[in-house]
This record gives sequence, C-alpha cells and structure tokens, in this order.
Amino acid sequence: MERIVLKFGGTSLGNIDKILSVAKIIQQKHKDGVEILVVVSAMSGVTNDLIQKSKKISSDFEKAELDALLSSGEQASSALLAAALVKLGIKSRSWLSWQIPILTEGNFGSSRILHIETKKIDHFIKSGGIPIIPGFQGISKDFRLTTLERGGSDTSAVAVAKFFQADYCEIFTDVDGVYTTDPNINTKAKKIDKISYDEMLEMSSLGAKVMQPNSIQTAMMYDIPIHVRSTFSNNQGTQIVSEEKIDYSKIVTGVTYSKTDSKITLLAVKDRPGVAAGIFKPISESNINVDMVVQNISSNNKQTDITFTIKREDLSKAIQLIENNKKNINYEKLTFDDKVSKVSIVGAGMISSPGVTFRMFNALAEQEINIKVISTSEIKISVLIDEGHVQKAVKALHKEFNLD
Amino acid sequence: MERIVLKFGGTSLGNIDKILSVAKIIQQKHKDGVEILVVVSAMSGVTNDLIQKSKKISSDFEKAELDALLSSGEQASSALLAAALVKLGIKSRSWLSWQIPILTEGNFGSSRILHIETKKIDHFIKSGGIPIIPGFQGISKDFRLTTLERGGSDTSAVAVAKFFQADYCEIFTDVDGVYTTDPNINTKAKKIDKISYDEMLEMSSLGAKVMQPNSIQTAMMYDIPIHVRSTFSNNQGTQIVSEEKIDYSKIVTGVTYSKTDSKITLLAVKDRPGVAAGIFKPISESNINVDMVVQNISSNNKQTDITFTIKREDLSKAIQLIENNKKNINYEKLTFDDKVSKVSIVGAGMISSPGVTFRMFNALAEQEINIKVISTSEIKISVLIDEGHVQKAVKALHKEFNLD
Repeated sequence: MERIVLKFGGTSLGNIDKILSVAKIIQQKHKDGVEILVVVSAMSGVTNDLIQKSKKISSDFEKAELDALLSSGEQASSALLAAALVKLGIKSRSWLSWQIPILTEGNFGSSRILHIETKKIDHFIKSGGIPIIPGFQGISKDFRLTTLERGGSDTSAVAVAKFFQADYCEIFTDVDGVYTTDPNINTKAKKIDKISYDEMLEMSSLGAKVMQPNSIQTAMMYDIPIHVRSTFSNNQGTQIVSEEKIDYSKIVTGVTYSKTDSKITLLAVKDRPGVAAGIFKPISESNINVDMVVQNISSNNKQTDITFTIKREDLSKAIQLIENNKKNINYEKLTFDDKVSKVSIVGAGMISSPGVTFRMFNALAEQEINIKVISTSEIKISVLIDEGHVQKAVKALHKEFNLD
Repeated sequence: MERIVLKFGGTSLGNIDKILSVAKIIQQKHKDGVEILVVVSAMSGVTNDLIQKSKKISSDFEKAELDALLSSGEQASSALLAAALVKLGIKSRSWLSWQIPILTEGNFGSSRILHIETKKIDHFIKSGGIPIIPGFQGISKDFRLTTLERGGSDTSAVAVAKFFQADYCEIFTDVDGVYTTDPNINTKAKKIDKISYDEMLEMSSLGAKVMQPNSIQTAMMYDIPIHVRSTFSNNQGTQIVSEEKIDYSKIVTGVTYSKTDSKITLLAVKDRPGVAAGIFKPISESNINVDMVVQNISSNNKQTDITFTIKREDLSKAIQLIENNKKNINYEKLTFDDKVSKVSIVGAGMISSPGVTFRMFNALAEQEINIKVISTSEIKISVLIDEGHVQKAVKALHKEFNLD
C-alpha cells in the first residue's frame, strides 16, 4: 500500500476552523486508501508568543527549558488535530516525541534527528490508525525535550518519511508552491512546477522561505519526493524531485533575496599565512555563520583587505570578537555595513550555459546597481548589494532570465 | 534537612512578572537552607483557553487527546519558572511527568496518582537543585499523558509531598487562606488560622474553592501538614492539620454554599424492594454523582416520593435516563428544579454540641427560608434551599454560630 507523510504548517492550523479543514483534507486522503502519517507545526502565533514570554524572563533563557517550553505548542496542535479526526470517525491519536521516541543529538534549540523508532506506530498504522506527530522536536539521550532549528517541522516531516519509508511527503503550507521569486516584490513571479533538490536547497538557503534547507538536504539524501502545496486550495503545487526527473528548458529557475545580511571589512590586514584562520576562528567558535568571503589580491606591501558577510543579528558580537583579537589579527581599520542584501539567481541549467555571470552583472549595471561582493557555486550566483536596490534587482534579473 | 513542597496556582503564575515574583519567593526559601520541590499549575487562562479550543472541535472531544492538550499548559509554566530560577543563579529544571515518571491509574481526565518515582529527583535535590514539577498530570501504564480531576495540581502537590516525604506542603494561591465563609457574599467572613483535615475536606466538598477535596484526603491519610497562603503577601495563612492539634472553641468552623445543584423528585413511586437501586443504577453507570437523597415514608398504599440532587450539568441526562427506564422504575410523575442551592455548616465541634440542627433550622426559619432537603454527617449539616436565598442564609448562619 502507498504510504505518505502529510505535513501541516502553523498557518494551516491557525485556528480551530482551519484544523477542522485540515482534518477533512486528511479524511479525503484516507478514503483514497493510502497509509498516512501526519506531522504538525504549532498553531500559528503560539511559538512566537512562547518566545516572547521566555524573553521577558531572560534574554539568556535556559536553552533546555526553552525547548521544553516551545515543544508544548506542537503537543497541543497534535492533540487537537487527532481529536478532530476522531470526531470524523477516523482512528487517530497524537504520538509525542517521547512516546515514539524521536531521538535527537546536538545542542538544545538546534538538535538533529538521529533515529525514529517505527515499531509502535507501524503497528498503529496497520490497525488503520493515523498517527499525528508533533514536528520540530525530539528527545535527547538523557530524556530531555529538544527542538530542531526554527521551522524544523519540515525536517521532522522528511525524517518521518525516511524512517517510515514513505513514498512521498506533502508539505501543506499557506502558499501555492515555490515561486520563481517572491510575489510580494515582483508580481511577475510564477509558480515552479518542478524543481530539483539542489536548486531548492539553494533557493531555501538564499531566502525563499517555503521550506527549511535542512529538510531538503535530507529529502535529497534519501530521494524522498516532496510536494509543496497550499492547504487552502486544490491546486497542484511544486514538486521537489531529483535532477534527472527534470527537463531543463530554463537557465535560471528562480531569483531569491535575503534582507538579514551585514558586511564587515578589515582594511590593511597584514597578509601572512593563517591570517584568515585567525579572523574566522573566534567567530566560528561563537557559532556565528560566515556567508560570503572576499579577499583582495595582496599588493607587494604585504597588506590585504578582507570582506565577509554575516547575519545582522551577529554583527555587534562579531565586531567585538575581532576588536578583542586586534593584536593577533593585525589590521588597520574595521568598517561595517548593515544595510546590505544578497540577491541570487539559482538554476541547475546554468552549469551548461556560459555567460550567465556576465548577463547577471550586466542586468544589474543597467539599473546602476553596484555589486559589493560576489559568491558563486555550480548552480547559483549571489551578489551583495545595497538593501534599497533589492526590488529593482530582483525584477531586472527575473526579466533577464525569461522568468516573467 | 527540612524538605518542603511549594505549590503555585494559576493566578500566582498569571503573567511573566508574577512568575518572576514566584521565583523570588522560592529564592528566599532556598536561602533558608531547606530542600524544595515545586509543583505548578498552568498560567491562569491557559487551561480554559485550551478547553475552549477543544469544545470548538467537538463537544465529545477524545478524552486521551484532551489530556495531552491540557497537560501542555503546565509543561510551559514549569519551563518558564525553572528558567526564571536559573536566571537568579539557582540550579533548577523542569521535570515533566513522563521524565520522573508520575504513574497514574483510572480514566483520562480523572486519573489518580499511583506512584511517583523519586530516585532521579532525589539525586537532583541532593546536588542542590530545585525541581519544578507540572501539577495536574501524569502518565498511564501505556505511556499516555493523563490528567487528574480539574484543579488537580493541589493533589499533585500533596502526592509529591507524600512520595518525597516532605515535612509540609505550602499551597500558594490568590487568597489569604481559608475563610469562615465566602467573603464575596458575606463581608463578615474571617480567615481561619487552623482547621482540621476533616473539616477542610467537608468545606471543599461543599463549595469552598480554596483547595481540591482529593488533595485534602491524601494529606489527611498521610498526615501532611498544609499551609494555604497568598502568593501576594507575607501574611500567615490557614494551617490544615490533624484534629488533635486544634483547640475547638467554636461549634461551627465555616459556612459554605454551592450553586451547581439541581433536584429531581419522582412522585408516587411503587414502593417495593430494590426500587432505589433501580433508579440510581443507570445514573451511577453514567458517572453522574448523586448527592443528597430523601425518601418519604411510604404510606399504606405502597407508594413513595423520592427526591435527590445532582449537579445541574447532569440534569437533562439524568432525566432522560429515568424516563427511558420508566417501565422498570414505575413512578407517576417526575418534577425537577435547577434553581436550588446547598448551604452547609461545617465544624468538628458540633459532634459534642447537641442542638446544632435546631439552631440551624431556626435561624433559617427566622429568615423565612424554606428547607427542601436535609443531609447530615458527623461534622456537617447541609440544607437545600432556593438559590435566591443563598446570601441571606449564609449571613444568618454565620451570625448564628458566632463567626461574625
């Protein structure tokens, strides 16, 4: 029998009427005679409310307790949805992470799913039941509640699909699917019918908020097809599948942007072996993620400028770390800019298409947009520009690569 | 070392500022060098909000899921309070019912605590930690979350005191202690300094809302002294202790009332052996609690009237059960009244004081209050009267027995 995982996000469960609608979607699938596992987020607003409460207690709220606090949100939504199904005459129950169990490793607040025990739930499914599993959480080896990264319910859904060997995973959300760019800033954005894991991974990492990057990585690794679609319509959404299943007619699949970047430049750094390590070691030890890095070619006076980008929320901490290490790093001056944004084009088609970089830079130059930093991979090109130019840049690139 | 259990109710944890105040109360006790276990309710409003949500899903919400849903409230408050203590530099953590575990038996929604495992938490306390335990819940043998009766956090606190062999249990609430009657309907109500388990049990069962009856029964059985006091003042509250520790100067300790009663009368019931059982069997099988019962003396025509009281919420169901059984029960007519209330006087002192009943009836007669049903035990007398006369009756009895 076909076995599927259905995941419903917070807005899909935003109030009781919506939960009842979700129950009907599940009922319909149930009538189709497939085996179903459901993964849920917390009702929208609940997690944010709990985070606000925690911040009022302490800006440095104990991490293990934060996980115990936040995971209560999905516990509640799981129970509500299970009871809504029972009301429709369907056998269902909530299976909390410690009941299954879902074992995680790593730090509180950013743990990873290590193993999901399948025996009890398999038995429940075989008896005709639909398990409702809270996303975003698990338990540690020493029996504490843990949470995955924010938005981790997608990751939970894909992990459930993997351990229960589901045929595919449907992600129900508040948008129709994945778009060529953000429809809020470019009305010409179009829904993508099919996208590869690679591309989706880049799109998510670069700012498309539809799915969490970790979840796509897992789906890619175990080749679990994903269907992202709206809870509120019957429209076909976006299929995320392996590359070979896609017919590439376009060089670029999507244009993304992020508005959470900031840039630090160290001027006149003494250029000797190990200097970059000296800069980035304390930063990485503080769990600050460095994104783009550029080092100017050293002139013969053995000095160089190093520019890198990090999340804005980490900016002041990173500056402090560097200044505390000034003696070791040996630079003349530090400048920073927190009004920068990253705009990217993503497409597996660009591997076989020379000239993409030129076309991108040219399209931006025509709009008189200055490029501050560039970063490329096989299937994406990202540029850092002034935040104020984001919309103009996205529109120009969307048009340039025939996505309009 | 002295070991105490502190229990904080929902209003004591009503918002983050209050949670921070509670943390300071605990900090103060901690400085006194005692071993502390804390039991918490959900933040006020949370449980009601979840119940409202469940009712919107179904009036017959699946009971196991309701327990999973509701227990999330105390999970959240436990985590918040533990983190507030950590912020004050005190070692603390939440211990959820499945982590301890707290084993229960019985039905979902009205389970009883069977056992609390002490080993891990004992170790935690010995290492200087303060465990925060969610009240009102436990797990069943098959690993499902369960809840006790509504208000069951008091019961949890007393059970924790029992299993961890605490010296006493402090119940922090939003009132100063137990009063001779409800101050809202009689301004002459006075705080009681000491009351016996027996009396408190009657008071709670008869409508005083300060503590849950089950919790007092457990405290009585294991002789755990309880101190009911306000979270918001340093005033001495009410000590609930065993009878021999109390000096009885008053016949009556308190006057209580309830406004949730209704009365059913079956007229001209054929009086033959087993008739009462025939009436009450289907009612008890439907988990409807019968409170007062009166049967008129049968006249020689072998007919009798039977009157009994039940909770108003059960009235329509009880009527239906009886009418469905009309053929077996064999009565002429059923009448009912849902505008009745029970007023009671409670006092261990009345055992040795003849004439209490007469004084009670006389005081009510002077107010022209008609008594519909009477029920007595060793330490209490209850009468059923018209709901509209409750305040007048309470004031008259409070005065009659020198409580003003």
